[in-house]
Amino acid sequence: MSKAAKTTNPKTVSATHVQMTEIVLPNDANVLGNILGGKVMHMIDIACAVAAHRHCRKPVVTASMDSLDFRHPIKVGELIIVKASVNRVFNTSMECGAKVYSENLNTGKCKHTSTAYLTFVALDDNRRPTTVEPMIVETDDERRRWEAAEVRRHFRIKQKQLLRKQG
Amino acid sequence: MSKAAKTTNPKTVSATHVQMTEIVLPNDANVLGNILGGKVMHMIDIACAVAAHRHCRKPVVTASMDSLDFRHPIKVGELIIVKASVNRVFNTSMECGAKVYSENLNTGKCKHTSTAYLTFVALDDNRRPTTVEPMIVETDDERRRWEAAEVRRHFRIKQKQLLRKQG
Amino acid sequence: MSKAAKTTNPKTVSATHVQMTEIVLPNDANVLGNILGGKVMHMIDIACAVAAHRHCRKPVVTASMDSLDFRHPIKVGELIIVKASVNRVFNTSMECGAKVYSENLNTGKCKHTSTAYLTFVALDDNRRPTTVEPMIVETDDERRRWEAAEVRRHFRIKQKQLLRKQG
Amino acid sequence: MSKAAKTTNPKTVSATHVQMTEIVLPNDANVLGNILGGKVMHMIDIACAVAAHRHCRKPVVTASMDSLDFRHPIKVGELIIVKASVNRVFNTSMECGAKVYSENLNTGKCKHTSTAYLTFVALDDNRRPTTVEPMIVETDDERRRWEAAEVRRHFRIKQKQLLRKQG
Amino acid sequence: MSKAAKTTNPKTVSATHVQMTEIVLPNDANVLGNILGGKVMHMIDIACAVAAHRHCRKPVVTASMDSLDFRHPIKVGELIIVKASVNRVFNTSMECGAKVYSENLNTGKCKHTSTAYLTFVALDDNRRPTTVEPMIVETDDERRRWEAAEVRRHFRIKQKQLLRKQG
Amino acid sequence: MSKAAKTTNPKTVSATHVQMTEIVLPNDANVLGNILGGKVMHMIDIACAVAAHRHCRKPVVTASMDSLDFRHPIKVGELIIVKASVNRVFNTSMECGAKVYSENLNTGKCKHTSTAYLTFVALDDNRRPTTVEPMIVETDDERRRWEAAEVRRHFRIKQKQLLRKQG
Repeated sequence: MSKAAKTTNPKTVSATHVQMTEIVLPNDANVLGNILGGKVMHMIDIACAVAAHRHCRKPVVTASMDSLDFRHPIKVGELIIVKASVNRVFNTSMECGAKVYSENLNTGKCKHTSTAYLTFVALDDNRRPTTVEPMIVETDDERRRWEAAEVRRHFRIKQKQLLRKQG
Repeated sequence: MSKAAKTTNPKTVSATHVQMTEIVLPNDANVLGNILGGKVMHMIDIACAVAAHRHCRKPVVTASMDSLDFRHPIKVGELIIVKASVNRVFNTSMECGAKVYSENLNTGKCKHTSTAYLTFVALDDNRRPTTVEPMIVETDDERRRWEAAEVRRHFRIKQKQLLRKQG
Repeated sequence: MSKAAKTTNPKTVSATHVQMTEIVLPNDANVLGNILGGKVMHMIDIACAVAAHRHCRKPVVTASMDSLDFRHPIKVGELIIVKASVNRVFNTSMECGAKVYSENLNTGKCKHTSTAYLTFVALDDNRRPTTVEPMIVETDDERRRWEAAEVRRHFRIKQKQLLRKQG
Repeated sequence: MSKAAKTTNPKTVSATHVQMTEIVLPNDANVLGNILGGKVMHMIDIACAVAAHRHCRKPVVTASMDSLDFRHPIKVGELIIVKASVNRVFNTSMECGAKVYSENLNTGKCKHTSTAYLTFVALDDNRRPTTVEPMIVETDDERRRWEAAEVRRHFRIKQKQLLRKQG
Repeated sequence: MSKAAKTTNPKTVSATHVQMTEIVLPNDANVLGNILGGKVMHMIDIACAVAAHRHCRKPVVTASMDSLDFRHPIKVGELIIVKASVNRVFNTSMECGAKVYSENLNTGKCKHTSTAYLTFVALDDNRRPTTVEPMIVETDDERRRWEAAEVRRHFRIKQKQLLRKQG
Repeated sequence: MSKAAKTTNPKTVSATHVQMTEIVLPNDANVLGNILGGKVMHMIDIACAVAAHRHCRKPVVTASMDSLDFRHPIKVGELIIVKASVNRVFNTSMECGAKVYSENLNTGKCKHTSTAYLTFVALDDNRRPTTVEPMIVETDDERRRWEAAEVRRHFRIKQKQLLRKQG
């Protein structure tokens, strides 16, 4: 990676950081007043798409989303905060990671409610997959995420093979 | 399963079938005119939540979503159709499956664009997980999905252990 | 009808069936928590437009809506289910029928809340009305609806004449 | 009518006038860029509900909508203007009338695109139909609409009987 | 002004009057059930843009908004009514004024909640500022607003200078 | 300020920082594809309300918004980024400042498009204005904003007096 990262206009991980904040509205929630899982996924997808688009400066499409847990409910009137960035670039694709937090504005209590990994493909003017520029990894944390992205990628490939066999 | 399925007000898989149809609107799409992955996830989550709620007749919350591929883009003006039902009931949780299709209204061309598996937990009046009634599996297809749901569950548990080790 | 129905790429009624399902959200309701009549009409219009578009595979515009009753309220958190299909094709127009149901997800109680009939006109590339292909009517139910559509059409024409006189 | 109109806090027709104006947005339109019929119905329903609520000062529910024509398309970026008022009060119900206009903001060209008649029922604190106060009709135009509302009501009753026989 | 107003297709103030009415929905409000200030500003901006567009019959963009007070809360289920018109035309810009009212539909109680002044610039086909036609001021009220608009304009220019110095 | 800031649970400015990011959608824009001024104001209001709520940990209502310029258009498909924080606390009110930026995702070009100042009032359980805790100002930048907020406050009071006289 480090070699590739030194060529042709490489960009840093931190340049892809995205932060989205919303107040959970009644229409985003179920009858219990808890945010719908689908609303959370929707925000994760947009935040990660922005991070990927920022890195490659080309339109991107969501290729896949890894499995995702919802650890704590987020209530109407609370904040949902999504932080995303690119973890690793592959040939024509990028893995992005997002962390979701809730904040109760009256108490200040924050919770980490989900972690997500999505893969995006960069498209050229003919809407075909196109090569993505290398990325500069600067901190230990970024390096750890870069390595973990490769592990997850192998896992994804294996999982697909398994599911294909299973029918 | 078959034993449990014979007791106390069991319900069929077919009673949980949900079908949602929407025309893809400009606000659901990116600048290429393709539906956002997050909009698709949002519809999948709602369709599966309805299927799960129909089975247990209690409020449900999304616990997790399995990994998900987006095989074909869906364009503004096309239909997105989501079909969902409960695959298997566990103790307090249910696995639901959803298939996503696109339809071009001018040509009639349909595509199967995604398959998704989500787990929901049923809640009692105190918003605590509560036991879900058994389910009657009637057709070979339903039986196949019932078995596959158990395989996926083991996979999920292993995956969590793996990710926990990985940090 | 049956003669016409045998020529040039005729299509079945069942190929036009549409099913839309939504959870009633707070923004769809009045202060009593009942769905707004206008939200119901909006869903009916879209479901019927999809059915008409599916038959003629050309863009369609709503020409008219027959009178419509709202028999039972649908509450926030309940399901609204709209089922629509084409009832009969005329020269450049199609009559579609829709039935609206509510479902209480906690009790499973379903109600038939409205029946609606809408007329759509098919448009060519210059946005002029254009001839619609014939339709294959297969079941007794479909035949009954086909006949009733003709009766309603006469009724509509008479009603317009009456209203024109009345000023 | 005139006798009743002199008792207990009667109100004028003009006090119920409502005017709603919106710019047609991309999400309100079909792929041709024409407003959806359902969006128009939605606005008509809300404008008339406000007029009815203003007269009786109690929550109201839509009971029925008369047949409705869409004479001209309204395009994205044009104005849709809905004007509504109460035409006549009956025992527990009110007939409201709405006129829909389009305006092209670049040319100033206005069109009258639809006329609609809706019936609303006033509800008491137990959500049961409740008597509506009388109404003061002041102008010739208002008197003409008051009379026509009675004619339409007879028409509605006959139509229901007809449709019931027809099955 | 009066001279200019007599030349080349001048238009009256009253021809720019806009009235928007909406029922405040749950998603427009904070957790106290009060409309968000931002929703009010959004409606003010659209109503004034329509008034300005009506005068110049060309696309307009918001250039600035004067300071704005929120005197009374508007609750979910109440009406928000925005009335706007053009106050004065300058060279390529127009000052519009808007008044915001709330109405409690159950009691009929109305309140004037905000007054706003916005400036819009007319754009030609190349999206460059373009000259706006003169305006006919007919009533004393319109004349008073025309004069006050000039005072506010001087105020705006001074304020900008002050803020620039202040940094 | 500095004295007050040392008592009873004071909080830092940086603890109130909010960042909201959205992709501009077709429904947020006018026919030229430029974001509506009202959409920008809506996001500014929410971001500042969150900052104020974070400081006082009580519900807040928008009291006023200072005059606001729109320097550059933001296009559909571009990012709008709003950054907000509390500038100064007064007795029961807080001044918040927001900066609005656009980012073209294909080129990476960013622009600072607006600066806004809003005042919020904290409410107690009876929805009456209530005292706000002091704030810790840590950096030179924060101190500069704290001082400027006082200048703007005097300006606001004078402006109100002026407008009152003017009628």
